[in-house]
Amino acid sequence: MKKYNFNAGPSILPQSVIEQCISDIRDFRGNGLSVLEISHRAKYYEAVIEEAEANLRFLADIPDDYSIFFMGGGASTQFYLIPYNFMGSRAGYVDTGVWAHKAFQEAQRVGDAVLVATSEDKGYTYFPKGYEIPKGLDYLHITTNNTIYGTELHTDMDCPVPLVADMSSDILSRPMDISKYAMIYGGAQKNMGPAGAAFVIIRNDFMERGDKKLPKMMQYREHAANHSMYNTPPVFTIYAINEMLKWMRAEGGVREMYSRNKKKAALLYDEIDRNSKFRGVVEREDRSLMNITFVMAPGFEEQSDAFLSLCNEKGIVGVKGHRSVGGFRVSMYNALPIGHTEYLVDIMREFEKA
Amino acid sequence: MKKYNFNAGPSILPQSVIEQCISDIRDFRGNGLSVLEISHRAKYYEAVIEEAEANLRFLADIPDDYSIFFMGGGASTQFYLIPYNFMGSRAGYVDTGVWAHKAFQEAQRVGDAVLVATSEDKGYTYFPKGYEIPKGLDYLHITTNNTIYGTELHTDMDCPVPLVADMSSDILSRPMDISKYAMIYGGAQKNMGPAGAAFVIIRNDFMERGDKKLPKMMQYREHAANHSMYNTPPVFTIYAINEMLKWMRAEGGVREMYSRNKKKAALLYDEIDRNSKFRGVVEREDRSLMNITFVMAPGFEEQSDAFLSLCNEKGIVGVKGHRSVGGFRVSMYNALPIGHTEYLVDIMREFEKA
Repeated sequence: MKKYNFNAGPSILPQSVIEQCISDIRDFRGNGLSVLEISHRAKYYEAVIEEAEANLRFLADIPDDYSIFFMGGGASTQFYLIPYNFMGSRAGYVDTGVWAHKAFQEAQRVGDAVLVATSEDKGYTYFPKGYEIPKGLDYLHITTNNTIYGTELHTDMDCPVPLVADMSSDILSRPMDISKYAMIYGGAQKNMGPAGAAFVIIRNDFMERGDKKLPKMMQYREHAANHSMYNTPPVFTIYAINEMLKWMRAEGGVREMYSRNKKKAALLYDEIDRNSKFRGVVEREDRSLMNITFVMAPGFEEQSDAFLSLCNEKGIVGVKGHRSVGGFRVSMYNALPIGHTEYLVDIMREFEKA
Repeated sequence: MKKYNFNAGPSILPQSVIEQCISDIRDFRGNGLSVLEISHRAKYYEAVIEEAEANLRFLADIPDDYSIFFMGGGASTQFYLIPYNFMGSRAGYVDTGVWAHKAFQEAQRVGDAVLVATSEDKGYTYFPKGYEIPKGLDYLHITTNNTIYGTELHTDMDCPVPLVADMSSDILSRPMDISKYAMIYGGAQKNMGPAGAAFVIIRNDFMERGDKKLPKMMQYREHAANHSMYNTPPVFTIYAINEMLKWMRAEGGVREMYSRNKKKAALLYDEIDRNSKFRGVVEREDRSLMNITFVMAPGFEEQSDAFLSLCNEKGIVGVKGHRSVGGFRVSMYNALPIGHTEYLVDIMREFEKA
């Protein structure tokens, strides 16, 4: 029996994308080879890279003066590449959770990274707003969705310095104004495909500010100029990303994804607010559409394991909260059907009555 | 019809490994999820990482005081991580081809990298030997097999300073004395699996010399301590690597691979030497077992395209030489059955008579 997959990432993929992967692992587009053993220099693979770039540009409505490419190494590699490239004198960081904090710490090891705002004072349960952004920063780094705590910035903020955003867990989840950002990056393994690649969306004039003395592999301009093939790319992962992007286009694009994501999140948050045994943990206006966190309501704390057991019994995986915060976390990325949310809500109701 | 795949990397995989990948993409080991959508923190995936580490340790006969792990970003990421970590004052590089040269150039961008030996004078057609290694180097970097030119170092050299080797294209191709090396690394996409991960084999005392002030993601000790999971790993690629390692163990291990590789290489080199229309290009004693390079013999130069057309017609892919050197290159990694080599030799004989 196929499980109900609420994992935080790597996470659920559409079943049709999985079937397409199997077909192309048998024989990639009729070329007589598995997609796992084709050369990245083959014309038919170059076409995949071009398609992925074009599909992402279309879906996220990315202006022409932005480069798009994929790299290995995950978002964590970007944590150090960004300060090495762009922190000429000083960069600012907004600390909204574990990953935002890691990005900040890595930048501190490269140069003068300063904390501009943080929500650590309330256990990262809200998104800082209205803070002052010091002038003269080389860039300001934010993490738009905090996978572990379940907070999300729902708007594209105005920023007087170049804005760099880790969107690992909310890229393509809502229509965005890309022009507000100098750079957007993230791991692919949530809304965009399986684990093994990071995406980079970067405004060309910002990219050209990158330190030209760095090793070539560390320079974004090399990856952009070589269309994700400066070195051997993660061939299969980028292939699978393209299949995922094609699926999103066929389903109606980012507007449709946003509409579905709002519906799924409303269903689950309404149940959390209604159900006497559960309660939410983050500020209402900052509640994430992607990662919904909650805990047992006061008086029911000891039933936590019982709820996890029930989920396990019902074929639900990935609802246990991150080990650093406890409680529950339900991730509902683009590929998650609304039926899965309805199923989980039914289980929560069943659990309340038990 | 399945093609005869002589690609230089990403390259051929055993058909049984491809079938296993398909099975686990449908349902990973009976867990009710595709291997493309499982969490890297799931117990059953931690088991995969442990298996891959243990299988590589067994196959390559890696001593206990070496750490083994996998990273994203390919060998090109290692080109800069190595000097950032270990080049306290000065490091030496041996330049034996395109990739060795790139590693050297990247290191020059980090610090004082010096050229210790090169075979550029004769178009990289041999492997330098008997050169003097300056004392006091932090390490000496070599590339044991040169995929593009078709030269290979067939022995494990004695080195008075820590020896760091890029073995992207000959790892697990022959029994090796790992204790001669401080560090061995490479991209997985030749003898070890599909593209998307690099392997690192590193002696613990050498690893601990790495600069502790670097961003954590750049420090090998973090990857070793976290068993390839300091950050989200390339989940599927490491899974597929483990399947490839399991296949090699089941087939008889590295000794058996070496025996097959020698047989395949002898078959093809003998034909190149015998066939009046072809001739080899590299020094006999440095001929690679993995990548066999040759050109048209004098007087037959204009038949180059005709040979490529014949190969294409007969379902053979990947025999065109790298764009920087021309001619032909036939890659025969561990997964290539000897029957494929025999088939190619038959085509070469047919071509001679035509």
